[in-house]
Amino acid sequence: MKRHLISAADLSRDDAVLILDTAEEMARVADRPIKKLPTLRGRTVVNLFFEDSTRTRISFEAAAKRLSADVINFSAKGSSVSKGESLKDTALTLEAMGADAVVIRHHDSGAPHRLATSGWIGGSVVNAGDGTHEHPTQALLDAFTMRRRLVGPDAGIGRDLAGRRITIVGDILHSRVARSNVHLLNTLGAEVTLVAPPTLVPIGVETWPCEVSYDLDAVLPKSDAVMMLRVQRERMNAAFFPTEREYARRYGLDGDRMARMPEDAIVMHPGPMNRGMEITAEVADSDRCTAVEQVANGVSTRMAVLYLLLGGSEPAVAPQNNARTEENK
Amino acid sequence: MKRHLISAADLSRDDAVLILDTAEEMARVADRPIKKLPTLRGRTVVNLFFEDSTRTRISFEAAAKRLSADVINFSAKGSSVSKGESLKDTALTLEAMGADAVVIRHHDSGAPHRLATSGWIGGSVVNAGDGTHEHPTQALLDAFTMRRRLVGPDAGIGRDLAGRRITIVGDILHSRVARSNVHLLNTLGAEVTLVAPPTLVPIGVETWPCEVSYDLDAVLPKSDAVMMLRVQRERMNAAFFPTEREYARRYGLDGDRMARMPEDAIVMHPGPMNRGMEITAEVADSDRCTAVEQVANGVSTRMAVLYLLLGGSEPAVAPQNNARTEENK
Amino acid sequence: MKRHLISAADLSRDDAVLILDTAEEMARVADRPIKKLPTLRGRTVVNLFFEDSTRTRISFEAAAKRLSADVINFSAKGSSVSKGESLKDTALTLEAMGADAVVIRHHDSGAPHRLATSGWIGGSVVNAGDGTHEHPTQALLDAFTMRRRLVGPDAGIGRDLAGRRITIVGDILHSRVARSNVHLLNTLGAEVTLVAPPTLVPIGVETWPCEVSYDLDAVLPKSDAVMMLRVQRERMNAAFFPTEREYARRYGLDGDRMARMPEDAIVMHPGPMNRGMEITAEVADSDRCTAVEQVANGVSTRMAVLYLLLGGSEPAVAPQNNARTEENK
Repeated sequence: MKRHLISAADLSRDDAVLILDTAEEMARVADRPIKKLPTLRGRTVVNLFFEDSTRTRISFEAAAKRLSADVINFSAKGSSVSKGESLKDTALTLEAMGADAVVIRHHDSGAPHRLATSGWIGGSVVNAGDGTHEHPTQALLDAFTMRRRLVGPDAGIGRDLAGRRITIVGDILHSRVARSNVHLLNTLGAEVTLVAPPTLVPIGVETWPCEVSYDLDAVLPKSDAVMMLRVQRERMNAAFFPTEREYARRYGLDGDRMARMPEDAIVMHPGPMNRGMEITAEVADSDRCTAVEQVANGVSTRMAVLYLLLGGSEPAVAPQNNARTEENK
Repeated sequence: MKRHLISAADLSRDDAVLILDTAEEMARVADRPIKKLPTLRGRTVVNLFFEDSTRTRISFEAAAKRLSADVINFSAKGSSVSKGESLKDTALTLEAMGADAVVIRHHDSGAPHRLATSGWIGGSVVNAGDGTHEHPTQALLDAFTMRRRLVGPDAGIGRDLAGRRITIVGDILHSRVARSNVHLLNTLGAEVTLVAPPTLVPIGVETWPCEVSYDLDAVLPKSDAVMMLRVQRERMNAAFFPTEREYARRYGLDGDRMARMPEDAIVMHPGPMNRGMEITAEVADSDRCTAVEQVANGVSTRMAVLYLLLGGSEPAVAPQNNARTEENK
Repeated sequence: MKRHLISAADLSRDDAVLILDTAEEMARVADRPIKKLPTLRGRTVVNLFFEDSTRTRISFEAAAKRLSADVINFSAKGSSVSKGESLKDTALTLEAMGADAVVIRHHDSGAPHRLATSGWIGGSVVNAGDGTHEHPTQALLDAFTMRRRLVGPDAGIGRDLAGRRITIVGDILHSRVARSNVHLLNTLGAEVTLVAPPTLVPIGVETWPCEVSYDLDAVLPKSDAVMMLRVQRERMNAAFFPTEREYARRYGLDGDRMARMPEDAIVMHPGPMNRGMEITAEVADSDRCTAVEQVANGVSTRMAVLYLLLGGSEPAVAPQNNARTEENK
């Protein structure tokens, strides 16, 4: 595997499947008496967040701590960054302090790429969301969730999503989640359809490896998973945005629409959900909605990413004997 | 013991005494060469604070870390909570991330109860202060402090406060500290008297298990402990509040008033103290004031609560041999 | 060694050399398979920051965690401090919570001294920058960097800077970094020259153990190290400050000026650098600029300070066998 994780588009099928298979192993750590692995002891993971995102930050924090890494949270607000320090100087500082991995969230598309290719950082860079570009660990945890739900746990490792039909609904234009999912799902062999108001479809989407539709009801019966994107309320007053009522009526998922989906099809949401907007409470709380599983799978997936990038030389998960030894200490 | 700690009113005498006795054991950890127990290794404690309270947050953080738990701080400010995420979605997120305990501070009375009874959370919920409702770990650390000071360390475990006369002075109406103390002290057999300006006595106080007085000077000679509540300066301009000067004159504790208390009686304060307002510097700094001990006891008490709620299967405090083994690692 | 580190002026030559030699040992920990020492396990280090300084805070945090201490970050913003709690009450609280060391950053010159001499705190106090007074760990990491670069790693332990000529350039008046460096460098036998606009030289500088010059170009050829202070942009509009262009022209370091320095002389900067202001990008990015090394050395130096203050009874760095045992756990 490469040293950084910047974009889902960079992942080969083998890379992606390795991460997902490793995440399956990581998920089992939660069942142990001591829910922790010693794998990254003495390693330092820095969460470098230029944008607030408590959910993503604590998911990475929990993942790193479960691997016994030390975690340092660096919120760029009120830091010397706001005193005019460049990304370069911040990077050199973290490098000098011995960061083994820098998890970066940034409002500028491309900032993680710059960080990774600059030579400023000797450790690994993980993109935790950059502008409207990518959010690759979100796509990985989504794929992990689909594999578990659609392909099943008994299918053995190395499973992929070949032939599964995934529909992504909402503000595709501004969504790094959608972008990362389209790339990764295509790599894993799935067939992706985007559904969005015409004003929220990005220019150039015809070069993406997916279909585009404006008719949610027509697509639902042919979907194995429907991923509802979060509406960013701060964008709702923009000229390109439908009214709230119009949006919910045409692109929101309610019980009636969910009933048109195939029996085993699932509803996904990256959270937090706007109940009553892109999804009704009825759908959000139904067994078919995987929003909560996605959060849990996020920790396992991020554990796998950190483990693989930081190149643990031991097997990811020690056999249970070791776990017991660990426990008796 | 129950799985959550929401209200001091829920604690049976046996529960309360078990917590206080366990806190005594926890207090001894500070005397060890390595001031730490391995008991909660691999467990995750989330501090979910919707209100700023650095003192309470770091007390819980220190308690959890001394038990070797991983701690994740989640300040709701600037989080997706402020983007409209419901308490439910936050709870489901923390649950999915594998939180074994959620320590919640919330401006709404009842939020911790909702969290605990909702089924959203599989782990334990600890109320770290909700609106004007309760702050049960404060009452427990206060009771622990009174037991140590009034009953003495040699009285053996299982001691309670039967017959001790406790006076609580100040803005009872808005005080979760007072509410929790009244319940717990009554459970432990103490006799409680509230002293407050008439406008700051809650409606329905006649149903509480305590006396009410408006005359501090009359009550002081019959008090084994006098607990001075903190005046919230932001409330001082409200119509129902006496003037600052009037408050200090009638309800403040100064050296003259302290002299009217029985010789061994103590002065308590949850901190931080407004010197010159509800308490003079002379009293605050005297040996009879336990404000600082209360802080230290807070860590021991919260260690006991976390230990008992998370159901450590080992004895709370391993014998010294194990500690030595621990140390040699 | 004393129990606190408040001022570089307090350090004897033996103290200073002990810290620098210990820092050399600490620097080697980064080369181990597990980059961590168990030395401060069970100890609690509190970062008490009344001013934002992410760089300094995470340097101390990384240092403490590499020694296995528990770290609690206490940002005074939004804490009860802003509700009127005094430094005294904050100190008593941290003491009661069992803080073994308090690392304090404060806007008031003298606050760390007050904390250390008050008797409020039983643990160690480390000054992480107070007003315009001192920043002793910055001076120590600077001296460590000079020793490594100018004296060389093969000179054995106990090396000092006798006879080295160090020039410090910039806003001396407001610089705690300059103050601490002048004291420490003098103690270590170096010859210090300050270069500053006349309005930015402190009154009484003639009592300091150093020379003062207003002519950077004259001093450069006789400098073994030139330390460029950071220009605080918020001060640039003050009446006593030269214009930006004037400042850069007369006191900024560019390639031409750097060429006048002796061949092995180094350029230092405490960071973050204002490229184009006190230093050009060419100089900042040259091999002679040690800004990044200074950051790395900061972690080693702070590890040494915490280790020595907290009185680890074991040798600072266990022999490699122990490290291996550590690793196998």
